[in-house]
Amino acid sequence: MYRPELLYEGKAKKIFRTEDPERVRVEYKDDATAYNGGKKGFITGKGELNNRISAFFFDYLGKRGIRHHFLSLLSSTEQLVKRVTILPVEVVVRNRAAGSMAKRLGLEEGLSFPRPVVEFYYKDDRLGDPLINEDHIALLELATRKQVMDMRETALKVNQQLVGLMAEKGVDLVDFKLEFGVDGRGDLLVADEISPDTCRFWDRVTGKKLDKDRFRRDLGEVEDAYREIWNRLGEDVLV
Amino acid sequence: MYRPELLYEGKAKKIFRTEDPERVRVEYKDDATAYNGGKKGFITGKGELNNRISAFFFDYLGKRGIRHHFLSLLSSTEQLVKRVTILPVEVVVRNRAAGSMAKRLGLEEGLSFPRPVVEFYYKDDRLGDPLINEDHIALLELATRKQVMDMRETALKVNQQLVGLMAEKGVDLVDFKLEFGVDGRGDLLVADEISPDTCRFWDRVTGKKLDKDRFRRDLGEVEDAYREIWNRLGEDVLV
Ligand SMILES: Nc1ncnc2c1ncn2[C@@H]1O[C@H](COP(=O)(O)OP(=O)(O)O)[C@@H](O)[C@H]1O
Ligand SMILES: Nc1ncnc2c1ncn2[C@@H]1O[C@H](COP(=O)(O)OP(=O)(O)O)[C@@H](O)[C@H]1O
Ligand SMILES: [Mg+2]
Ligand SMILES: [Mg+2]
Repeated sequence: MYRPELLYEGKAKKIFRTEDPERVRVEYKDDATAYNGGKKGFITGKGELNNRISAFFFDYLGKRGIRHHFLSLLSSTEQLVKRVTILPVEVVVRNRAAGSMAKRLGLEEGLSFPRPVVEFYYKDDRLGDPLINEDHIALLELATRKQVMDMRETALKVNQQLVGLMAEKGVDLVDFKLEFGVDGRGDLLVADEISPDTCRFWDRVTGKKLDKDRFRRDLGEVEDAYREIWNRLGEDVLV
Repeated sequence: MYRPELLYEGKAKKIFRTEDPERVRVEYKDDATAYNGGKKGFITGKGELNNRISAFFFDYLGKRGIRHHFLSLLSSTEQLVKRVTILPVEVVVRNRAAGSMAKRLGLEEGLSFPRPVVEFYYKDDRLGDPLINEDHIALLELATRKQVMDMRETALKVNQQLVGLMAEKGVDLVDFKLEFGVDGRGDLLVADEISPDTCRFWDRVTGKKLDKDRFRRDLGEVEDAYREIWNRLGEDVLV
């Protein structure tokens, strides 16, 4: 079907044009991928849960002074966001060792850090999203020095807010990935999504993983885990 | 044979105790390894050439205000150096894309950079010397923030000096790796070696590689390349 309004279809979301050139509609899909597309699957209900969870987190952060792209929910799987030019840098904040970093540095998964660790990755599927440093970002002109400083600072603020929020919900925020974009005014905004696809959440009591690692590592009960996060967030809110 | 004075045998050098606890003797070997020990070989004459080339570079840099571990040549394959505690961080400076970085970032080998790029790697053979950032260095306590700043600054000074020197010899300094150590006084010194094993040198006219890439990539004439570097440096000096 010809969809003139479809701007981009990614691995987890579709981006649609709207009548306003400064706004786009994001449709969250049930498709799941991992290991740079090496593993593919389907998590029933993920689109709806991530749409709601993401909207909730953006709204929560916005109320605490963090600038983001989210505008409003449109349906159970769709949200309206400000259209931005995404900087091809993924910003990761880690509070504990897990995943690629644990492996890379030979650290035991779960090791708690005295201070959060910030990492930049080059958002390029062809290259497998390699870890980069600030000299690489400058060389490749992925972002200005100022944008890099802003991204680091904002990512640490997001971490502080989300660690606190999730702790209240009995969840450890192990790590997460942010994407940033620049809007028509040149302002840097947190964009993309914040969800169990892009965060590691561990139950603080049982240690149970409540995130995409259940899919990556074939742990089962994937949808339940995403729903558990939504239920805990949803307790005292209506978005 | 029992060698009470052997402190450490590495892939390219042996370190021996001396009567002075603050000094060690380094013996440069003909052994060659690449790809984290995955490829092993032997380059006749390499020990002697790298001993002389390294001594020459340290002496040259010392005269230009850079603090290093080199003290004196002891024989064709041995030198006396200050004993230091090596920081487990390899500092790489790059003027052009080559090797792992070209591959990692999808850059054509030889691409010239407007400004040198500095990278830190965790010196850990078991982990394959992974690229790290300053947060990882702090987390793992590999070096203090001040040492990181000093290493970056010194590495860039070394680059400036060696680029200039090699250009006079008709050679492009593509990239190099430094190791730093801390001496008994707590001073940070450039240590280990600076040689065709640890630098990429390309002939400025023909582009011919005059470094360990000839061994890594089976290009032949390996010893000749090392000797060519020594001959060009040796033209106007006697160490
Ligand atoms: N506000 C926005 N404006 C424009 N593009 C966005 C916005 N938010 C996210 N994007 C981009 O849209 C795509 C979202 O789809 P996703 O399925 O996550 O893609 P990908 O497979 O590239 O990760 C991503 O490339 C993301 O960077
Ligand atoms: N001045 C010094 N004092 C103590 N150790 C040193 C000094 N200079 C270099 N070293 C260390 O000695 C070893 C040199 O041997 P090498 O064959 O290069 O080892 P490796 O296989 O670990 O690279 C390295 O581990 C290096 O860090
Ligand atoms: Mg994505
Ligand atoms: Mg070595």
